[in-house]
Amino acid sequence: MEDKSLKEHKKYAADIDSISKAQTLIKPYVHVTPILSSETLNIIAGKTLFFKCECFQKGGAFKFRGASNAIFSLNDEQATKGVVTHSSGNHAAALALAAKLRGIPAYIVIPNNAPKCKVENVKRYGGQIIWSEVNMQSREETANKVLHETGAVLVHPYNDGRIISGQGTLSLEFLDQVPQLDTLIVPISGGGLISGVAIGAKAINPAIRVVAAEPKGADDAAQSKAYGRIITLAQTNTIADGLRASLGDLTWPVVRDLVDDIITVEDKEIVEAMRYCYEILKVAVEPSGAIGLAAVLSDSFRQNPVLKDSQNIGIVLSGGNVDLGVLWQSLNS
Amino acid sequence: MEDKSLKEHKKYAADIDSISKAQTLIKPYVHVTPILSSETLNIIAGKTLFFKCECFQKGGAFKFRGASNAIFSLNDEQATKGVVTHSSGNHAAALALAAKLRGIPAYIVIPNNAPKCKVENVKRYGGQIIWSEVNMQSREETANKVLHETGAVLVHPYNDGRIISGQGTLSLEFLDQVPQLDTLIVPISGGGLISGVAIGAKAINPAIRVVAAEPKGADDAAQSKAYGRIITLAQTNTIADGLRASLGDLTWPVVRDLVDDIITVEDKEIVEAMRYCYEILKVAVEPSGAIGLAAVLSDSFRQNPVLKDSQNIGIVLSGGNVDLGVLWQSLNS
Repeated sequence: MEDKSLKEHKKYAADIDSISKAQTLIKPYVHVTPILSSETLNIIAGKTLFFKCECFQKGGAFKFRGASNAIFSLNDEQATKGVVTHSSGNHAAALALAAKLRGIPAYIVIPNNAPKCKVENVKRYGGQIIWSEVNMQSREETANKVLHETGAVLVHPYNDGRIISGQGTLSLEFLDQVPQLDTLIVPISGGGLISGVAIGAKAINPAIRVVAAEPKGADDAAQSKAYGRIITLAQTNTIADGLRASLGDLTWPVVRDLVDDIITVEDKEIVEAMRYCYEILKVAVEPSGAIGLAAVLSDSFRQNPVLKDSQNIGIVLSGGNVDLGVLWQSLNS
Repeated sequence: MEDKSLKEHKKYAADIDSISKAQTLIKPYVHVTPILSSETLNIIAGKTLFFKCECFQKGGAFKFRGASNAIFSLNDEQATKGVVTHSSGNHAAALALAAKLRGIPAYIVIPNNAPKCKVENVKRYGGQIIWSEVNMQSREETANKVLHETGAVLVHPYNDGRIISGQGTLSLEFLDQVPQLDTLIVPISGGGLISGVAIGAKAINPAIRVVAAEPKGADDAAQSKAYGRIITLAQTNTIADGLRASLGDLTWPVVRDLVDDIITVEDKEIVEAMRYCYEILKVAVEPSGAIGLAAVLSDSFRQNPVLKDSQNIGIVLSGGNVDLGVLWQSLNS
C-alpha cells in the first residue's frame, strides 16, 4: 500500500523538513537580515510593507543561503574536490564565499557580460573564475568541462534541491519576524528563491499569498504559468541582470502549483522602485532587488482582484550588488 | 551642606537619568535601528566594526530621537503654539515629523542652500518652511522673528538639553545591541549627538572611548579641543553638509570633558567611505553619515597611540538623506 503522505512529501525537490534542516545547518554562517519599513512608502503603496533586506546578507544577496546549504551538506569526500557552477554573479560569489568558509575550491563559470562588481565579489572570496560566452549553452558546456577535469560537484544556481531548501530558509525567518504577513512578493528568475519561499511559507501559513515579480523583458515565468509548461525565451531585455534565467524542471512544478500570481513590470518601474529604495529606505539595491517594490506599486497589482485586498505585504529586497556607474546611468536614462 | 552628587548630576545639560527618561518617552515613536557588519570592511579596517544604521531611523537620520524627545516633553499649553527651529535639514525634517505625530505646528527656518531632498522631507512631514540666508546670524534672526510672532517654543538643533538627551538614547540602544564595544565613532557638528552619546555610553561603561569624526574643512571642534575654548570658523568647506555647525555652550563642556579624541578627515576620504557604504554595506548614507567609517580608515586613526588598540568599534551611520545627483557628482569628482 502506498504511503500517501510520503508521496506528498516527495512531491517537490524541497519540503518544510529539508528547509528546516537547512536553517539549522547554515545558522552559524548566515546573517539574520533585518526588516525595514517606511511610513512614506506605506502611504505611496496604500499597504503596510515590510522589506526583508537580503542585500545585507553575506555576499550581498539571498544566494548565500542556498550556497552555504549546498556546501555544508556535502560529505567530506565530495567536499575535497570542490564545487563548480555557472552564474551571472550573485550565486557565484555566494558559492565562492561558502566554499572558502569550508576551505574547499570553487570553480566559477561566469558569462563575459557579468557586472564588474559581481565578478569582483567572486575574486574577493577566492573563487577560481573560468569565462564563458553569454548564452546558456556555452555556460553549461564550460561548467561540464570543469566538472570532468576536477571531479568537483556541480551546484546549479537554482535547479537543485539543496539550493531551493537553502533559499527557503528566508521564508521561515521572515514569518518569524513578521507573523502577520498575508502576502509575499519575491523576484523570479530561475525560480530557486520563490520555490523555497513558497514551500516554506505555505507550510507555516497555507493561506499566505506568494507572488512573483518579473521583468516584462524576461517574462518566461509568466508565460510558463499562462501556457502550463516551461517556456524559455530566445533572448531577454531587462536592466535586472539577475532575472534573466529560465525555470528548471525542479522549480517549475513549485511555481506552477504554489505561486499564486506573477506580476510583470517595465524596466522604468524597476528604476523608479530603485530610486525609492535609495532615497526613502536608504538601502542600496540592485535592479533585481527592487523589483518586488516595483510590482506592489504597479497598476496590475493595485487592480488585481485578489491582491488588492492584501494588507501586510512582505517584499524581498533580494540583493544589492550593483555598479554605481550602471545605477547612475539607469536613473538618468 | 552641599550635596556633591547632586552637583555632579547637574554638571551637563543632560545626564544618564534624562537620557533614560527620553528613551522611555520616545520609545513608541522611534525605530530600534539595526546593526550591520561586514567581514570585508573588517579586513580593510583591521578591526571589528559594528555599524549603527541611523539612516534607517524615521526621517532618515538620528535627529528624530532628539526631536521627538523635545516635542513629547512639551506640556499641553506649550505644545499648542508649536515649535520653531533653524536647521540645515535633518533636524528640521525630524522636528516636523515629531510635531506632526503630536498634531502641533512646526515652523522651520531653512538656509537657502539646503539639499533639495532635505527640504522635500520637511515639506512631506508638513513643516511650514521659512527661508533664510545661509549664515547663522540670518538663521537665528529669522527664527527669533517667527518665535515672537507665533509664541512657538524654540527647539535648537543641538544646544538644548532635550535634544542632547534624545540623541543620547542612541548610545543606550547601541550598547544593549553590542555590549562588547570598546570605542564609539560619532560625527561631530554642533555636538548634540556626541554629547548625548558620550554621557550615555560612559555612564554604562566608563572605559569606553568616544571619538568624534570631523571634516578637515569644518574642524572647529578639533580646534576647540586644541585651544580649550569654543572656536568658530568664518567659513567651512566640506561635502558633509550636516557637519558645518559650531559647538554650543551646552555641548562644548561635554565635548571638552568626555570626548576622548577628534579625528579629522579630508572630503576625499568621506567620499571613499560613502562608496564602501553603498557598494559593500549596501546602505545609502549621506556624506555626514559616512564620516565615521572614513575616520576609522584614516591614517590618523590607525597611527593613534591609543586608538590603534581599539578592537570592537561602533560606528554611527548618522543619516541617509542625500540627493542621488549630488552623490554621483561627488563619487566622480
